[in-house]
Amino acid sequence: MSGKSSKFPDAGDETRISVFGATGSIGCSTLDVVRHLSAQRRFRVVALTGNRNVALLADQALEFRPQVAVIADASGLAVLRERLAGTGIEAAAGEDALLDAASRPTEWTMAGIVGIAGLRPTLAAARTGATIALANKECLVCAGELFLAECRKSGATVLPVDSEHNAIFQVWETRNAAAVERIVLTASGGPFRDWPVERMAGVSPDDAMRHPNWSMGQRISIDSASLFNKALEMIEARHLFGLPPERIEVVIHPQSVIHSMVGYSDGSILAQLGSPDMRTAIGYALSWPDRSHMPVERLDFAKLARLDFSAPDPVRFPALQLAREAMAAGGLAGAVLNGAKEAALNAFLAGQCGFLDIAAAVEHAMTVCVPSAADDLEAVYDTDRAARRAATEFLARKRNGRLRRPHEPARTGSTDR
Amino acid sequence: MSGKSSKFPDAGDETRISVFGATGSIGCSTLDVVRHLSAQRRFRVVALTGNRNVALLADQALEFRPQVAVIADASGLAVLRERLAGTGIEAAAGEDALLDAASRPTEWTMAGIVGIAGLRPTLAAARTGATIALANKECLVCAGELFLAECRKSGATVLPVDSEHNAIFQVWETRNAAAVERIVLTASGGPFRDWPVERMAGVSPDDAMRHPNWSMGQRISIDSASLFNKALEMIEARHLFGLPPERIEVVIHPQSVIHSMVGYSDGSILAQLGSPDMRTAIGYALSWPDRSHMPVERLDFAKLARLDFSAPDPVRFPALQLAREAMAAGGLAGAVLNGAKEAALNAFLAGQCGFLDIAAAVEHAMTVCVPSAADDLEAVYDTDRAARRAATEFLARKRNGRLRRPHEPARTGSTDR
Repeated sequence: MSGKSSKFPDAGDETRISVFGATGSIGCSTLDVVRHLSAQRRFRVVALTGNRNVALLADQALEFRPQVAVIADASGLAVLRERLAGTGIEAAAGEDALLDAASRPTEWTMAGIVGIAGLRPTLAAARTGATIALANKECLVCAGELFLAECRKSGATVLPVDSEHNAIFQVWETRNAAAVERIVLTASGGPFRDWPVERMAGVSPDDAMRHPNWSMGQRISIDSASLFNKALEMIEARHLFGLPPERIEVVIHPQSVIHSMVGYSDGSILAQLGSPDMRTAIGYALSWPDRSHMPVERLDFAKLARLDFSAPDPVRFPALQLAREAMAAGGLAGAVLNGAKEAALNAFLAGQCGFLDIAAAVEHAMTVCVPSAADDLEAVYDTDRAARRAATEFLARKRNGRLRRPHEPARTGSTDR
Repeated sequence: MSGKSSKFPDAGDETRISVFGATGSIGCSTLDVVRHLSAQRRFRVVALTGNRNVALLADQALEFRPQVAVIADASGLAVLRERLAGTGIEAAAGEDALLDAASRPTEWTMAGIVGIAGLRPTLAAARTGATIALANKECLVCAGELFLAECRKSGATVLPVDSEHNAIFQVWETRNAAAVERIVLTASGGPFRDWPVERMAGVSPDDAMRHPNWSMGQRISIDSASLFNKALEMIEARHLFGLPPERIEVVIHPQSVIHSMVGYSDGSILAQLGSPDMRTAIGYALSWPDRSHMPVERLDFAKLARLDFSAPDPVRFPALQLAREAMAAGGLAGAVLNGAKEAALNAFLAGQCGFLDIAAAVEHAMTVCVPSAADDLEAVYDTDRAARRAATEFLARKRNGRLRRPHEPARTGSTDR
């Protein structure tokens, strides 16, 4: 990340923005922030994109009047065209249209597309030199070096929007980066924080959806419950802040009030705290290096009463150790971890494996997949596919009874099964 | 406070420093920080001063080789002269010598003299334009406007050393000062945090000395137990950060791990946390805007396990409301509050009044003393003396049975007793 000097035009001028993944949770919050800030700043929306929710995308386009609205799923194009007919807003569909939209110049682009599908459009946006508000995890987890190299080349600034990385960024003193001893990512611990491992083996997708603090989508809620979400965040933090893996700590903090912390060499820990409302982080990314009012609930410490902390259990939550191994391996090991996790998550959602099998499948993929050393986008996709295949095959063999039973611990330190 | 640009010479150059109150707790910690930082930076010590502990002051002078060592209590001068004979270090005593020492140019001066006695020397140091690491409370509480006006005139930078104000300063974004909604001062709540008011009426000075987290002197420990320490800090914060009184909150936080917080308009709360070791704050003040390694214990969140918060009880701890009244009154009302509190604390330590009478005496003084509108040092001292007299007389009348009994609540809202 570059130093804290604003690229934004002066008040009174227009800020061109695009929102990728506009119909998702982050996208909707982003447009709500834009709506709120429009009372004091002028925005011109260049592109809005959605995955499948064409009705919502059309509503958003009619309100925010972008140059172009893109629906990733081409089956929605006819409806989008009809809804936007006569408005002068271009309607488009498919990956080429997404990439075209991402290549249009803006001052600020929200990279809110979820999953590996966000990789190409976010890279295209980064190549314009815009400020990228980064909510997509895969850009850093699967392709961190490639992505950041492109940003350096174009002069793009990356502002993290995940509440944890946004918190770290808020208390990260660029001039004192060399004095940072550690970052402490907080993790709610999810709904199974205190469950015995035997009980965790038998949980359902519905059990895993019960995130204690944040209301999120299905996949990310389950990733929170397994701490794979935190594992991805460790890898993201490694790329964003350039710290060695051993300086990236995770602490369980069930209330999720402290969003994350930075420890400096003078013994100071700086922390950002807030309510579970993404508009704070998005508003910060859109106003940085200034701050703007956000209509979010204020923390009341007397009402909070207490904040708890504990060390994550490495036996029940092997995801964190897998992240450390991926960071130590470097290269595309993050793409292996992520791809295998995605495939295992699919299997879990389909009732084809147990909750603890997700980590077992990732561990297996990390031992059998030798990620390509090549550092281009094709290598990332190849690695992602290989990891998905390895995890899927592992889980299929396990279903066929040729592997250990599901309530055995996922981590044994051995790959000989 | 001015913006974050260093006045300090480049590494390799010498930083001239003075330490006022060198033999006290803050002074000793300051010299320990200087000792630690001397491995990487060069310091030249201009002046070291102590109150009565001439043996320690002489030891410090022999180690740090200042131009001048000053003992406030003139009875120590002969010993100081003898110990420093032949070293080339000047030995001096008394207030004029303190003021002379304070007028000698430095880059950085620790204002660590406790009490109203610190006022004149700190003002003299501020007039040199040095960076003032401010540990003395009375400069701001009793003479805030005067002191800050002198700093503005000379170009002196004030860096707060109190752990609370230092924490706020660490997370205070100068460019976003207009977006600060509130500051939240944390208070341990002292040893009587959960005691019923009847029991508090009968506590002894020894009871009040049992501060749960910090090891401090007798007077400040008792001020912590009554929350008068926090009342003074509210007034200091008002001057340092320029917020209206209603934006200065206090929350009880028994573990004292969060040293204080700043709330911004986007809903973010930024906090500084640390171990109870003043070297972090002093090291920050001596390295600012950089940070230097300090040999203090690192926070271990899993070991901390929990942090608690509650609202202060206005009935048992009237000091906070008295601070709000002093802030609302403005002018020299802080000097009234502080002077009356000092006199009442003397009476409490002498066994001449109960613990809850301290607040009652302050409240009385605040109703009968009309502080001079004049804003010079003589007016401050006059106001201080008048407040002490009013509090002392109030407590004497009370002892003679002409006032309510000690276990009655101190706050009734009426001045008619």
